[in-house]
Amino acid sequence: MSTPAPEHDDPTLEADVFARNCDSRPVLQNVASRWGVLSLVALREGAFRFSALRRRVDGISERMLSQTLQTLERDGMIHREVQQSIPPHVEYTLTDLGAKVADQLEGLVVLLETNIHEIRSAQDNYHRD
Amino acid sequence: MSTPAPEHDDPTLEADVFARNCDSRPVLQNVASRWGVLSLVALREGAFRFSALRRRVDGISERMLSQTLQTLERDGMIHREVQQSIPPHVEYTLTDLGAKVADQLEGLVVLLETNIHEIRSAQDNYHRD
Repeated sequence: MSTPAPEHDDPTLEADVFARNCDSRPVLQNVASRWGVLSLVALREGAFRFSALRRRVDGISERMLSQTLQTLERDGMIHREVQQSIPPHVEYTLTDLGAKVADQLEGLVVLLETNIHEIRSAQDNYHRD
Repeated sequence: MSTPAPEHDDPTLEADVFARNCDSRPVLQNVASRWGVLSLVALREGAFRFSALRRRVDGISERMLSQTLQTLERDGMIHREVQQSIPPHVEYTLTDLGAKVADQLEGLVVLLETNIHEIRSAQDNYHRD
């Protein structure tokens, strides 16, 4: 999966996610994607090998996890380290920035999980009207 | 755009976003979608009419905004109020839960915007390797 190099026309520009061409928009989409959120939040628990992370993020395919990790590594959210063991294996950890982003996403996840009853009621009412 | 009624088999179950069939997963996808995030964060600024919100969320189509607002209303994140004016118009505001979710998303957006230089460097390094 090759990801095209983004073009940074003017590095002095401030980021504004509300502007349609802002660099921050695709990054927001990457970290806030279904698998992006779950991978980042899972990695708050510590370093993971690929196969363990795949078990933790229930339902993700090998291809989607691989693509998600590549994108998160590219955006500076996670660190990929090849360990010199026999056989060699690869471990994924959060970068400092990735840890901050993951904390924020964890807050979002907890908010939704703890309010799921209210959300279900809203959904039921909406469909009853 | 009709959204199918979700089935809540067992309302006593606790939510766990890591479980593939958890009700919280589609809600997470809705609020964390590109347009979901931007609409919710924009509504932190106050009540919006449809057309004003569309101008605020630069790049969104009428159809996508309409679909996004419907989904967010269904999930109990926003409130849609028809005002008895002539001509009548519709205003959108955050619910209490929506405001909490929007605050969390605003934190994420600010984190990405303020670290955009670090993210750009990571992207440049990734493509250089």
